[in-house]
Amino acid sequence: MQAATAPTGPYEGKAKRVTLRPDGLVELRYKDDATAFNGQKHALFADKGVLNSQISEMLFQYMEEHGIPTHSRGRLDERTLLAVPAKMFALEAVVRFKIAGSLRKRTGLPDGTPCSPPIVEFYYKRDDLGDPLLNDAHIALLKLATPDELATLTALSLRVAGLLHEVCARGGIDLIDLKFEFGRIPNSDGSSTIVLADEISPDTCRFRDAATGQSLDKDRFREDTGDLLAGYRESLARLRKGLGK
Amino acid sequence: MQAATAPTGPYEGKAKRVTLRPDGLVELRYKDDATAFNGQKHALFADKGVLNSQISEMLFQYMEEHGIPTHSRGRLDERTLLAVPAKMFALEAVVRFKIAGSLRKRTGLPDGTPCSPPIVEFYYKRDDLGDPLLNDAHIALLKLATPDELATLTALSLRVAGLLHEVCARGGIDLIDLKFEFGRIPNSDGSSTIVLADEISPDTCRFRDAATGQSLDKDRFREDTGDLLAGYRESLARLRKGLGK
Repeated sequence: MQAATAPTGPYEGKAKRVTLRPDGLVELRYKDDATAFNGQKHALFADKGVLNSQISEMLFQYMEEHGIPTHSRGRLDERTLLAVPAKMFALEAVVRFKIAGSLRKRTGLPDGTPCSPPIVEFYYKRDDLGDPLLNDAHIALLKLATPDELATLTALSLRVAGLLHEVCARGGIDLIDLKFEFGRIPNSDGSSTIVLADEISPDTCRFRDAATGQSLDKDRFREDTGDLLAGYRESLARLRKGLGK
Repeated sequence: MQAATAPTGPYEGKAKRVTLRPDGLVELRYKDDATAFNGQKHALFADKGVLNSQISEMLFQYMEEHGIPTHSRGRLDERTLLAVPAKMFALEAVVRFKIAGSLRKRTGLPDGTPCSPPIVEFYYKRDDLGDPLLNDAHIALLKLATPDELATLTALSLRVAGLLHEVCARGGIDLIDLKFEFGRIPNSDGSSTIVLADEISPDTCRFRDAATGQSLDKDRFREDTGDLLAGYRESLARLRKGLGK
């Protein structure tokens, strides 16, 4: 979703359709599509978009309440959220509390090994390049963020991940890792504010049952290990519990 | 060459054989083997080892003269150098002055695009994992270097690369990128010194003719673009010129 909430026009992403409205907000319509392996695996799950929009709205609201600026501006219908158009960073920020997925392959450490302190990674949002890992020098070379912005993105990522980790723990979810996207929203004085954008959902997090280790997230689709929608519904219920709702 | 100069015993690497001597030094015998793509491509080139040992000895000596501590302790025969056994970091440090190879694929930038300032990257020396790129957080997680050591490795890498870049420029070579390995040598007071180890040669550098852009290095083997030994001989001659020898 590189240009997802950029104010340049409509955009069809893998999991959301983005439309600019006459009032200057964007509509983020959550689709029922599930994709994995850079789009090579694809399927439809009725109401996945409805569930994810509920989860993401709830979590973005929680982040706002804890001082994290987000692009969120309410809801239009059961699968469509409203947001301020933000100029997106071409980066995915990933925070990892335990080894899983590509970090298992990169480090050779066993799945589930704790990362203490949590690991922050940045990936280049370029489907044509396979979304490669970048280090700070690459980010500077590609002018994807200034050093100050990168420090802000890192701090925000750790803060948001830490808040979500607490919510998950209260709901009986083991938060393994999660992916964020951020954007810049211009201020009236010419400066800009970095905001949390895109979504937080079982599409972008690894949620596991804290007791059994069973996946409640998109790994069910990636690895064909269970009913995707049941996992997402369970995630929603447990996050509600974690939020005291 | 993860354990290449570790004092734990003999070690057969892709390009060198390492043997511990009774006097406590190690012998680094430069082989005629050329390998690429993590060992998938392999061939023998008579006297490559002799050429590389000459180039590496000469460049390590130059680095010593410029205050960089190295593991080098002279020469045994035409293809065998002597060194102090060092406890090797399981890291490859890469410094890049221009886009080439994996950085072209990672960034999508055209081959030859200048990197200003130069890029430093660290790769995990794990053939079984494909020598993956690591960021600072991964290095800390894997305890491959302390933050202080990593800062030293980065500064040393940039300094050595900068010195070599000057030598190359004087010899009519465009230094595109190069790979280093470092080790720790224990001091008598219990501390240790980080030293430049392994080798610097056309096996570990991208050398191109500054006028024509033609490769003088192992890319000739990787890409089947010319006589490997002729390129290595030309590298040696030009580096000698650059060193005023």
